[in-house]
Amino acid sequence: MCELLAMSANVPTDIVFSFTGLAQRGGVTGPHVDGWGITFYEGKGSRTFKDACPSSESQIAKLIQSFPIKSEVVVSHIRQANRGCVSLENTHPFTRELWGRYWTYAHNGQLSEYQDKFSVSRYQPVGDTDSELAFCWLLEKVVEKFGDNEPEDITLVYHYIAKLADEIRALGVFNMILSDGDHLMSYCSNNLCYITRKAPFGKARLIDTDVVIDFDKETTANDIVTVIATRPLTNNEQWHILSAGEWKLFCKGQLIGEL
Amino acid sequence: MCELLAMSANVPTDIVFSFTGLAQRGGVTGPHVDGWGITFYEGKGSRTFKDACPSSESQIAKLIQSFPIKSEVVVSHIRQANRGCVSLENTHPFTRELWGRYWTYAHNGQLSEYQDKFSVSRYQPVGDTDSELAFCWLLEKVVEKFGDNEPEDITLVYHYIAKLADEIRALGVFNMILSDGDHLMSYCSNNLCYITRKAPFGKARLIDTDVVIDFDKETTANDIVTVIATRPLTNNEQWHILSAGEWKLFCKGQLIGEL
Repeated sequence: MCELLAMSANVPTDIVFSFTGLAQRGGVTGPHVDGWGITFYEGKGSRTFKDACPSSESQIAKLIQSFPIKSEVVVSHIRQANRGCVSLENTHPFTRELWGRYWTYAHNGQLSEYQDKFSVSRYQPVGDTDSELAFCWLLEKVVEKFGDNEPEDITLVYHYIAKLADEIRALGVFNMILSDGDHLMSYCSNNLCYITRKAPFGKARLIDTDVVIDFDKETTANDIVTVIATRPLTNNEQWHILSAGEWKLFCKGQLIGEL
Repeated sequence: MCELLAMSANVPTDIVFSFTGLAQRGGVTGPHVDGWGITFYEGKGSRTFKDACPSSESQIAKLIQSFPIKSEVVVSHIRQANRGCVSLENTHPFTRELWGRYWTYAHNGQLSEYQDKFSVSRYQPVGDTDSELAFCWLLEKVVEKFGDNEPEDITLVYHYIAKLADEIRALGVFNMILSDGDHLMSYCSNNLCYITRKAPFGKARLIDTDVVIDFDKETTANDIVTVIATRPLTNNEQWHILSAGEWKLFCKGQLIGEL
């Protein structure tokens, strides 16, 4: 399987603390050694850092931990391969453009008997994972329904994607993170949780490595930051555990839609 | 304007030497301080490193120079903004997926009165540069002509793109690099040159900083490596200068098509 990490914030925020915990699970405290990736949105732009090697050993992962990139939306993934070999093209997150936005997606889980369902033409996978194919199919279905122009209320798109995700979940395990750069969606099959941090901020202690952060010193009173992860990253805070079929939509750190 | 750099090789090769020269032009020996980017293909996968800050000061550019990523195709760009503000979404190279391949593109030049010509729907720009819009239009026209499946002979696509590039060149200056991961195309409007290095290899000396490399020690007798740049990067080798409307298509370091 794999592990997911994502962030939505109302001010550009660095994710060094959370990513430091996640990166340990890529070879030290967890078995997810088959690559890792992280996408940062900065305005409408985005950049993705990826490696097919374990995050705990990656030079690029070290850079991410030492050079804080401030972003309002982050999507990250560490991989333990099941479908598809270990290679850069099979490394999450995956990105495609739709309606002049970069859509970024990462998946934790495994699907079965999906080839017939996921018929695609406009968006085609580059690698050979079930994950990327499911992403292409989601976008294909979104275009089929909404056409070539973004609807005025983009939350309708996420409600539709949640229905599609229900269909995918029927084929196996489908924990998903999806973002258009403004919004961040988390869809749960069996393992996904989140925490929203806002004033008054306190200290947080990572589970996977000996790091404590005092958010009170790193933030202002107006900051709202939501972090989503496969499993809680800290052991002294209350994380919300999602249940099967549950999804949450965040914008600027705040919950704006859910089932 | 901007500067372009690209590489096509028959073995995974690092571009540290050439990129070291180019990065100097982003703030030290050249005025291209409005961002930079570099895309490495590894198999079908690709990864892009980008920054909206000058390449000569970028932490990420330093990583690229100290941590050799071996690749068979590289596309790079340093930016001096004309159309579109300085921001991550306006930083080249740009990438879109078509036919299950990542297509990567970078442009040097400036276009005028292009808005009417470049009508797009399937591929839409995320930023507001003439460059990204022209790229979206190119892909849109390619899909219009070839449909949703890659033709058996992909060089036909490049011949068609060259015709489209002629049309774009009529609107201004259009020096372009384009790759599907296997092939690398360079299209010249006014500033583009290339060099193909193969055995017997010799020494090369960068123009922009005091670095000499002995390729004989870095390569094997079978290596073939073509480097494309806006201006020659070395001062002791013979670069081929392209003329207006001329284009070259490379695969595995070798010239396979041209006008």
